[in-house]
Amino acid sequence: MKIIDVSLPITNSLPVWPGDPAINNQLVAQINLGAECNVTQLNLGAHVGTHMDAPCHFLDGREGIESLHLENLIGPCYVVELPDDVMTINGEILDKANIPSGANRLVFKTRNSKFWDEKPATFHTDFTAFEPDAARLLVDRGIRLIGIDYLSIAPYKRATETHRILLGGGVSIVEGLDLRQVSGGYYSILCLPLKLVGSDGSPARVVLIDEV
Amino acid sequence: MKIIDVSLPITNSLPVWPGDPAINNQLVAQINLGAECNVTQLNLGAHVGTHMDAPCHFLDGREGIESLHLENLIGPCYVVELPDDVMTINGEILDKANIPSGANRLVFKTRNSKFWDEKPATFHTDFTAFEPDAARLLVDRGIRLIGIDYLSIAPYKRATETHRILLGGGVSIVEGLDLRQVSGGYYSILCLPLKLVGSDGSPARVVLIDEV
Repeated sequence: MKIIDVSLPITNSLPVWPGDPAINNQLVAQINLGAECNVTQLNLGAHVGTHMDAPCHFLDGREGIESLHLENLIGPCYVVELPDDVMTINGEILDKANIPSGANRLVFKTRNSKFWDEKPATFHTDFTAFEPDAARLLVDRGIRLIGIDYLSIAPYKRATETHRILLGGGVSIVEGLDLRQVSGGYYSILCLPLKLVGSDGSPARVVLIDEV
Repeated sequence: MKIIDVSLPITNSLPVWPGDPAINNQLVAQINLGAECNVTQLNLGAHVGTHMDAPCHFLDGREGIESLHLENLIGPCYVVELPDDVMTINGEILDKANIPSGANRLVFKTRNSKFWDEKPATFHTDFTAFEPDAARLLVDRGIRLIGIDYLSIAPYKRATETHRILLGGGVSIVEGLDLRQVSGGYYSILCLPLKLVGSDGSPARVVLIDEV
């Protein structure tokens, strides 16, 4: 069994979504200043790095991140590897992707993963994401969990419709995956957000397990 | 397979360690005020609720929470259920606890779990925790992961020695578990902190899987 960490390292310089709060984690107690132990205070948006969206992120009044069913976030998962020339994921691309019919947790590896090679990483607006027609197909297929390797499941500046279709259709969304070390195929996924009551999202630790 | 969530729900009223930052998560974008989506900013200490400690929490200059080996945090786990009259865990208590010799991830259910019944929860100082001699025994046994059902693995006002022995001995520590729904015996544990580079700790989502 091989454990593959597909979570982004969270540092204060990790790019965040434009307009979201910057990451500003800092020490508030320090051994070298006489404290008993080091203690960090975390200041970060709920949608930084590898993270999950709650229904209330785009559907006002709906459930927070604590409502996600763990049964949807733990279990067999199929990684779909798309060619680098796929700039947007629409229904046609999905139809051609040879996704096994029984797979109901799907993670998409796209050209986006290469963005994480950049040092220091900067925010990109031209990332590959899901069009509303693809989102509808995922809901119709009964997908429980959908993942992508950039900070949004939806195209830049067109976030609302794709998110509302997926969240309204009961699909859990994980964004900001780092899939550089992963190839297409079956894995087990463990996708665990914090249990933040009422929050529209949460950073998450996500691993794939390859039962080699 | 039954998934048991042993993580505390994080709200702004969850008790925190005395002196640590209060939890102050708040909405910074709101659909009902005209925003495209709801966005929460998280403001919380690294040691709130169910959380893990990094070596650098008590050992200045040592590794942050991102250094924990996922292999130690995922796998078979034995839950030790101690009677309610155990007020502190010392070597003698450990010796009598009938812990299977092969178990190297251990979670202790104590009288502490009842503290989480309180509404609203308040901070208790008289929680059951590990004495330094018990910590040494755990290191000697090669324990990889140790968990407890209150906010510290070490007794109140005597935190340093137990933490240093465990962290220095390569034992990963998870604190603040809610074990009210769990009985003693074997499970699989998934214990996933955020990948916070350099942080002395991180909130974590922790689940036990009962292969019924």
